[in-house]
Amino acid sequence: MEIDNYNDQVAQLDPPPIPTIQQAAKRYSGHVGPLIDLSQAVPGYQPPDLLLNTLARDAGDSQNQGYGNIEGVTALRNAYAVDTNMTHNTTLSGDNVMITAGCNQAFFVAALTVAKPGESVVLVSPWYFNHQTSLAMLGINVRSCSANKDNGFIPELTAIEAAIEADVRAVVIVTPNNPTGAVYPEKLVDEIYELCVRKGIWLIIDETYQDFLPEDQDTSHQLFHQPINNHLIAISSFSKSYCIPGQRLGAAIASPFTISQMAKVMDNLQICAPVSAQKALASCMPELRTWRMQNRQLINTRASVLKRVFESFPGWKIESLGAYFAYISCQSSALPSTKLAETLASDNGVVTLPGTFFGKNQQQYLRIAFANVDAETIKSLSTRMAI
Amino acid sequence: MEIDNYNDQVAQLDPPPIPTIQQAAKRYSGHVGPLIDLSQAVPGYQPPDLLLNTLARDAGDSQNQGYGNIEGVTALRNAYAVDTNMTHNTTLSGDNVMITAGCNQAFFVAALTVAKPGESVVLVSPWYFNHQTSLAMLGINVRSCSANKDNGFIPELTAIEAAIEADVRAVVIVTPNNPTGAVYPEKLVDEIYELCVRKGIWLIIDETYQDFLPEDQDTSHQLFHQPINNHLIAISSFSKSYCIPGQRLGAAIASPFTISQMAKVMDNLQICAPVSAQKALASCMPELRTWRMQNRQLINTRASVLKRVFESFPGWKIESLGAYFAYISCQSSALPSTKLAETLASDNGVVTLPGTFFGKNQQQYLRIAFANVDAETIKSLSTRMAI
Repeated sequence: MEIDNYNDQVAQLDPPPIPTIQQAAKRYSGHVGPLIDLSQAVPGYQPPDLLLNTLARDAGDSQNQGYGNIEGVTALRNAYAVDTNMTHNTTLSGDNVMITAGCNQAFFVAALTVAKPGESVVLVSPWYFNHQTSLAMLGINVRSCSANKDNGFIPELTAIEAAIEADVRAVVIVTPNNPTGAVYPEKLVDEIYELCVRKGIWLIIDETYQDFLPEDQDTSHQLFHQPINNHLIAISSFSKSYCIPGQRLGAAIASPFTISQMAKVMDNLQICAPVSAQKALASCMPELRTWRMQNRQLINTRASVLKRVFESFPGWKIESLGAYFAYISCQSSALPSTKLAETLASDNGVVTLPGTFFGKNQQQYLRIAFANVDAETIKSLSTRMAI
Repeated sequence: MEIDNYNDQVAQLDPPPIPTIQQAAKRYSGHVGPLIDLSQAVPGYQPPDLLLNTLARDAGDSQNQGYGNIEGVTALRNAYAVDTNMTHNTTLSGDNVMITAGCNQAFFVAALTVAKPGESVVLVSPWYFNHQTSLAMLGINVRSCSANKDNGFIPELTAIEAAIEADVRAVVIVTPNNPTGAVYPEKLVDEIYELCVRKGIWLIIDETYQDFLPEDQDTSHQLFHQPINNHLIAISSFSKSYCIPGQRLGAAIASPFTISQMAKVMDNLQICAPVSAQKALASCMPELRTWRMQNRQLINTRASVLKRVFESFPGWKIESLGAYFAYISCQSSALPSTKLAETLASDNGVVTLPGTFFGKNQQQYLRIAFANVDAETIKSLSTRMAI
């Protein structure tokens, strides 16, 4: 293989993590029950019929086959602004919204808009792996700031400030967090943002799991309460909230001027997000708000079940439990987490992601996307994960 | 505006070209007839009912809402390999195909896979603007090789070789060409590829308009006749061929190892192309081959009409006419092409793209996507474009 014929910033990256672990799952014989896939975050319930029917209607409409606006279909930009305003009691307009093909793309566009090769971006460790790899392939350096277990996997403001060296262009936070599920306190989010403004850099906040907050926690950060300036890009996904990852839709909230810069990147990346799916989601979004709130309750119930299961589960410990994800450790096995996750997938038919995918010093953890499966399946983990 | 707070490789780029010229079109009053949009290449006929119905069926199917394989849905990878094999009399397999969200994305993925910031890529001038801007925002330098009018806008092999300096990682060609419509002779394509192999670099060939070849020309390059090595990425789009740009589907043909590298980029860019649209296209592709051939004839008829109209059209001259596009010049106006295109759009309601969008020394040209409109509309240009 002429591996040196490729961009080494791509060639030196490991293969995408999720297909790698799912390869191990293919070796599972099924001998102790159906495969339980807790790897990629995919809601374990269907999109509502209203959305499916509208997706069908709009996909088959000859009027929806042309290119759309680079920034997104106006109806969806407006609908998401309205929805966000209801959540945050704010007055954003559709001009503050850009539609992307999922949140990975929103991050890629945001990162490329604010930083260039040789500059740096601060990620909180453990991080979402695609943030690190996106930056790596763009030649943007990662400066790491640890979120420690002792602090509930929440980073300290002082640690973030210490990571902001002269070449740093942005701080990236993910809350609710991937992989730990931790929800950052609103006050901390506001303080991180103020820090970024003071330093003249950007806050990129990834709120993909915003619809799955734990029972007792509400997001009420103040980021959208003032006119959005040129230091903030908030990104999110419609994949989890509406159970339509295959349609590839996400969003960014930013100032109209920042969106005009991001549009240059988007035009080159793929001109526009898929048009008919944007139209379908726009027309259903208002009606689906209640359904989404019910899903939050459903997933919180699953979190409670998971908590109970692990309380009396020798060898296993939940280190962090929050929105969508739990971050767990195994006391009864000396296997490193990569090997442990492979064994769980191939022998036990339980697919998790090893902490090593999420940065350095994470080898003792596994991430489980517990929201993927129902309460009965979660209960079965007490036997299925016995090792 | 704190423009210096952005990545200057993005901030210094002009806004996306097509919305810019369409802004001018919004000022058109309609006083001499309906707007004639010859700017963005969008076929002026509908997708077939078979495809629309299948898009609807698959978009509304709850089984199609999950993530798909990063490299694309297997059925579409296979279907496109079969279709390409019929065109080229080759034996490609689905493992040689990667599905992307349109050809812009295929180019972005290809470029990032083979070149990194500070390295260079050769573009043939005039070039497709998004190739230049994609490279610019990635910090990859463009080395230009001119395709001159005297040679029918076909580059000379010696000129390409001269442009391949030590830091060049790839040569990009677009055939049938955007913006000129010129179709590169098969022998030249093969020679450019051999040159790239000899130099240890890549050929990226963009064949977006491969289904719209002029009557007397057939593509029979030998690129796919041997097992594809790690010096070739061929990219294409389903947007024009199947009239579904809004669904965002394109493809790359490469070696399986190259696709494993491109998959790392794709995973970060957007995980996968939209799933239900991939499935729909896969199931319709075999049946639509005849329909596509009929469209080729239809568009060739439009080319003949355009040729006749301009033969007796004082002040205007077709400099190049080929697949989908014509590249024309105006002798009766001293306006630079940017101003001329704006005036045509705002005063005459005819939307074209100025040559300045396509690189240096193109100010005397306009690109017209004649395939967008029917023969009657093309005939009306003799009055509508009178200036």
